[in-house]
Amino acid sequence: MKMEVQSLPAGIANLAQHEQRARETLDPAAWAYLCGAAGRGITERANRAAWESVTLVPRVLASLEGLDTRTQLLGRAMASPLIAAPVAFQQLAHRDAEVGTALAAAAQEAGMVLSQQASTPLEAVADAVAADSRRGPLWLQMYWQADRSAVAALADRARASGYEALVLTVDSTVRSGFHLPAGLVAPNMPAAPAAQDLRSLCAAAPTWHELEWLCANAPLPVIVKGILHPDDARHARACGAAAIVVSNHGGRTLDGAAATATMLPRVAEALDGAVPLLVDGGIRSGTDVLKALALGARAVMIGRPIVWGLTNAGARGVAHVLRLLRDELEIAMAQCGCANLARVHGDLIAPIDASAQSLRNERTT
Amino acid sequence: MKMEVQSLPAGIANLAQHEQRARETLDPAAWAYLCGAAGRGITERANRAAWESVTLVPRVLASLEGLDTRTQLLGRAMASPLIAAPVAFQQLAHRDAEVGTALAAAAQEAGMVLSQQASTPLEAVADAVAADSRRGPLWLQMYWQADRSAVAALADRARASGYEALVLTVDSTVRSGFHLPAGLVAPNMPAAPAAQDLRSLCAAAPTWHELEWLCANAPLPVIVKGILHPDDARHARACGAAAIVVSNHGGRTLDGAAATATMLPRVAEALDGAVPLLVDGGIRSGTDVLKALALGARAVMIGRPIVWGLTNAGARGVAHVLRLLRDELEIAMAQCGCANLARVHGDLIAPIDASAQSLRNERTT
Amino acid sequence: MKMEVQSLPAGIANLAQHEQRARETLDPAAWAYLCGAAGRGITERANRAAWESVTLVPRVLASLEGLDTRTQLLGRAMASPLIAAPVAFQQLAHRDAEVGTALAAAAQEAGMVLSQQASTPLEAVADAVAADSRRGPLWLQMYWQADRSAVAALADRARASGYEALVLTVDSTVRSGFHLPAGLVAPNMPAAPAAQDLRSLCAAAPTWHELEWLCANAPLPVIVKGILHPDDARHARACGAAAIVVSNHGGRTLDGAAATATMLPRVAEALDGAVPLLVDGGIRSGTDVLKALALGARAVMIGRPIVWGLTNAGARGVAHVLRLLRDELEIAMAQCGCANLARVHGDLIAPIDASAQSLRNERTT
Amino acid sequence: MKMEVQSLPAGIANLAQHEQRARETLDPAAWAYLCGAAGRGITERANRAAWESVTLVPRVLASLEGLDTRTQLLGRAMASPLIAAPVAFQQLAHRDAEVGTALAAAAQEAGMVLSQQASTPLEAVADAVAADSRRGPLWLQMYWQADRSAVAALADRARASGYEALVLTVDSTVRSGFHLPAGLVAPNMPAAPAAQDLRSLCAAAPTWHELEWLCANAPLPVIVKGILHPDDARHARACGAAAIVVSNHGGRTLDGAAATATMLPRVAEALDGAVPLLVDGGIRSGTDVLKALALGARAVMIGRPIVWGLTNAGARGVAHVLRLLRDELEIAMAQCGCANLARVHGDLIAPIDASAQSLRNERTT
Repeated sequence: MKMEVQSLPAGIANLAQHEQRARETLDPAAWAYLCGAAGRGITERANRAAWESVTLVPRVLASLEGLDTRTQLLGRAMASPLIAAPVAFQQLAHRDAEVGTALAAAAQEAGMVLSQQASTPLEAVADAVAADSRRGPLWLQMYWQADRSAVAALADRARASGYEALVLTVDSTVRSGFHLPAGLVAPNMPAAPAAQDLRSLCAAAPTWHELEWLCANAPLPVIVKGILHPDDARHARACGAAAIVVSNHGGRTLDGAAATATMLPRVAEALDGAVPLLVDGGIRSGTDVLKALALGARAVMIGRPIVWGLTNAGARGVAHVLRLLRDELEIAMAQCGCANLARVHGDLIAPIDASAQSLRNERTT
Repeated sequence: MKMEVQSLPAGIANLAQHEQRARETLDPAAWAYLCGAAGRGITERANRAAWESVTLVPRVLASLEGLDTRTQLLGRAMASPLIAAPVAFQQLAHRDAEVGTALAAAAQEAGMVLSQQASTPLEAVADAVAADSRRGPLWLQMYWQADRSAVAALADRARASGYEALVLTVDSTVRSGFHLPAGLVAPNMPAAPAAQDLRSLCAAAPTWHELEWLCANAPLPVIVKGILHPDDARHARACGAAAIVVSNHGGRTLDGAAATATMLPRVAEALDGAVPLLVDGGIRSGTDVLKALALGARAVMIGRPIVWGLTNAGARGVAHVLRLLRDELEIAMAQCGCANLARVHGDLIAPIDASAQSLRNERTT
Repeated sequence: MKMEVQSLPAGIANLAQHEQRARETLDPAAWAYLCGAAGRGITERANRAAWESVTLVPRVLASLEGLDTRTQLLGRAMASPLIAAPVAFQQLAHRDAEVGTALAAAAQEAGMVLSQQASTPLEAVADAVAADSRRGPLWLQMYWQADRSAVAALADRARASGYEALVLTVDSTVRSGFHLPAGLVAPNMPAAPAAQDLRSLCAAAPTWHELEWLCANAPLPVIVKGILHPDDARHARACGAAAIVVSNHGGRTLDGAAATATMLPRVAEALDGAVPLLVDGGIRSGTDVLKALALGARAVMIGRPIVWGLTNAGARGVAHVLRLLRDELEIAMAQCGCANLARVHGDLIAPIDASAQSLRNERTT
Repeated sequence: MKMEVQSLPAGIANLAQHEQRARETLDPAAWAYLCGAAGRGITERANRAAWESVTLVPRVLASLEGLDTRTQLLGRAMASPLIAAPVAFQQLAHRDAEVGTALAAAAQEAGMVLSQQASTPLEAVADAVAADSRRGPLWLQMYWQADRSAVAALADRARASGYEALVLTVDSTVRSGFHLPAGLVAPNMPAAPAAQDLRSLCAAAPTWHELEWLCANAPLPVIVKGILHPDDARHARACGAAAIVVSNHGGRTLDGAAATATMLPRVAEALDGAVPLLVDGGIRSGTDVLKALALGARAVMIGRPIVWGLTNAGARGVAHVLRLLRDELEIAMAQCGCANLARVHGDLIAPIDASAQSLRNERTT
């Protein structure tokens, strides 16, 4: 698949500028669907604030020879711990849509998770990057379906197309307040009954039994996305999950949910390395990525910034966003005395005290 | 009793919009009387802020079959833990007044507490909903009267009319700064001596002896409303209270009193389930309700939002407010993995840490 | 001494209105001198914020018979724990000056501390209220003088005029940034050498030896004002201090000093009742007074609000301020279930937790 | 060297006014280079906020005879603990440049650290103050060079010119976002290869081996600047560092680094007096200096305020800034009961509690 490479609008040199431009550019309904938050946005802000309240204690005079962002995940090398998060209906942001994101992620050696609610057939996305040997992992995000055969069919399509893992989202039994603009088609979704009510949604929601079945029967490793509670993380691992994504859906489901940066270290402590952890929600800079790794994540997922980049310049914009984050991560690693990610651990994080709070308050003056 | 059903003004889809519209609509003096706060409003804001500072850790993959908000209180089934709080002189808000609130509560299967200072005779309110088999509990709020015979007479009227419990308010020996608009009549109140001074009010104020007498002699269970201190809760139980409402009168009495969300878990710990707890003060969403239940309440009372709904569309508006809260509670339960309220407990609440504070600060930028 | 009784300007019904009116009325230089703060005002704001961060847990159903604000201090009955703090050069605020304040305090049964830097001879102030049997204690504030004989002479004048105690201010070796408007005369001060430099001030500053000497030789009890550290409080008591005022000079000396509400309970714990404690700094309501008593103070000093009242209506204004505070204290006591001050103790104070912080932040939205 | 003495612009009487004037005066690019912060300025604000969140508990009635700011550092007497921090290319601020700063520091008896990136040859700066017997210590700041011979050559030049110590900056392997205005010459720097990339910078970055070599071979004591982690401080001492500067480069390198006031007491605890500590970052008043000393520093470095003073009035402005800080320090010492710096210790610092937070929040209203 080919696409015309668009150039980046002038004046965009960081993620904040990407966000501002995208907000100005995008149709408000599309912005609300792609970048909005649930309720009053409490959790969305909590995610951001929690990363900022974590402060770093850099180390000096360590050898920085061979500075390198490489990591390993599910037995596979990754050039960096960056993964494009699953975002539905990316054609709302730009005609390049999911293929553009996939090409950009591959070009930047980042991973990519295709949303089941993508605008593009999953096979087309996989084909677009199949030949790129440097690309990061390609995963398919899915919601539980009405029956196991539908799940199995989707998993088989994913495997056949070259996807390397399934990402089962478990935090979205109900999402309220997000209205999909009319006329969109989701080629990877079974035809859904219209206007499901809450009780139907709940009755059809997966349980631990379904996860256990999926882990046992899926042709690919199963990653569970949307866990905040340490006990749920333990349970998911016991069911066979290959990895866990600590997530509150970017503040787009339960408004009032705890921030991911708050829960990540608790989940990490509970799992004690038994399965790799990922995290998303409010990660907006290379220092945020470094903080996530120091708090116990192996990799991070980037959601809204991908949409901003896609909106601003299609695949080129997504590549720019991922490049900025990786560059920032490299610099932050160097500044913290970590030549590679194996050297990143909890000792980099300053104890929380009054000064962190003061910092936040200071910003309000 | 019949009343013309009014339609909801356009553009009101949540409680914040109800509040804004009611504030614009209501006469300022009536707004001050019905929705105002004592002093500088410190406690009113503290109530709201305390609910927001509590964050939830949702559980995933639990079975949500039979999602249900039902609960039990004083041996009676309730369709949801929502109860319309006692609010005086509701005719200031709308001609539907207390009958409107009662009909709306019944329609939404919520409980209702009639204020002793109602604009409407208590019998009329009871009659209006007597035939509705789905209605929640109907209780009568009362202040202690000048003498026991007046108390007994009121309690007898309540029981004879079908009220199921008495709610004795104990936190309002003195309320300053609230001036009742002229010309109002309180048909359930004995004629009060005009212009009582503080010492007279104090001399006439009830003590634990009066509570003990009331619990022993009232023809209905006695619920004590207005307790914040764990020792007072224990004392009330020892006097025979059937339930306790953790309340600071919505910040309308002592400005500077601790927030109810702060004291609720301490009271719950002190009582250890010996009597059911209710709570009010600043509850403005289904997630607030869920937080209250997770912190130890069996049910919650909704005050100002009832007034907003009543102002905006009479009984219809109250019903809308209660419906919104119940729907939100159901969704929040589903999002937290609780198919019923028996599954809601303290483990849903995230430990308080710096990120909660950060969240709050972030809102100020 | 007689003075024309001025009426209160319309629209002043609380302390906040007193402050606003006084700020509008007073000459900016006089306002800065009388009501200003040192440095960037950090400590002045900290004082206020610390009182607000303390929240109350009221008690219910206690007997309120005989509600009464009386207390005892230095063997003397007081109608309330309110004392007008020493404020220099009150004629800057109003021609009634210190005599006005003294008459107002006496009328309201409050105590009064005359500043050594008063505009009025100390004898005139004492004479003005000598005949009023209901007046509270009358004390003379003093700074250490160049030599003991000057101190002794002032103390003898005080005793001869009817002052009941000396209040030695110990936190003001240096105060910077306060410029006294030209032409003022301080009739109670020895002629001071002009333009003293810091080293001279330090060399002349009193030490524990001087306090010990004063306590041993003064014809009146010595109260030490300006202590924040528990060890200093213990030391002052060992030197013979009759009482201690926990004070940071209202944020007018060391900007960055800890808030008095923060240090008061620590000082109280260190002294364990050995001598009575007073406190000042940012007390602006009856609930603040109640909090101060619950945290260990026997009485409180009111500074800037006295100046506001004096500015707005001379003696009448001061009386109004003191009356408002006493009324508020009475109401707060009733609301907290304390019929008298003996029932006020630390259990009234809520544990500090995140909700208190949230409250504060909420105010900024 | 002679320079015309410029007079201070009217209306500048404190550091805040210096800052405001300098910001208005300086070319924006020069301001950004000299006074800017990395990233979003999180760490720069954190530095300031952390000093403010530390509150003082002054002591009273201590003898203040012989009030004195003298201290000792590296076996040398200093009139005060103030040191002008190394600031690059001071000619961007004023034609007086580094010589002006050095003359001002000497006139105020403060120390001075010349930046290796100075606009002026290091010999010229040393010569300008060589004859002043009251001047404080003169040190040369340096970055590690491409090879040891370049380092040794620079160290020899420093020693030959009269510099008393080398200050090796170790927190700046990478600094991003600072663009030096074109045309500047750095006479103390070896010709650097243009446009170094991150990997080259990292490969050339010094490690503990280089520090060890430098400490063993330098003709002057080596001070290590830029440490936040207690273990790094211990390591630096083991390598032979003569002193350590707790610093995050004023928030100009890693945005998100912990505040220096947060880490200083932890580093002090780890070193337990083994080598003297200095600190910089956000120190803006004499009370900040006193807090730094109470938290374990022997001296402090002043960066941006030096630039403000230099911008506003050349050497005269720098002298004014240093004079203000020393005067404020003296006053704060007197107000805290410390006649000399040996009496300053951790007991002056109030325990951190909610009131400190409240204070900060209060400022936002």
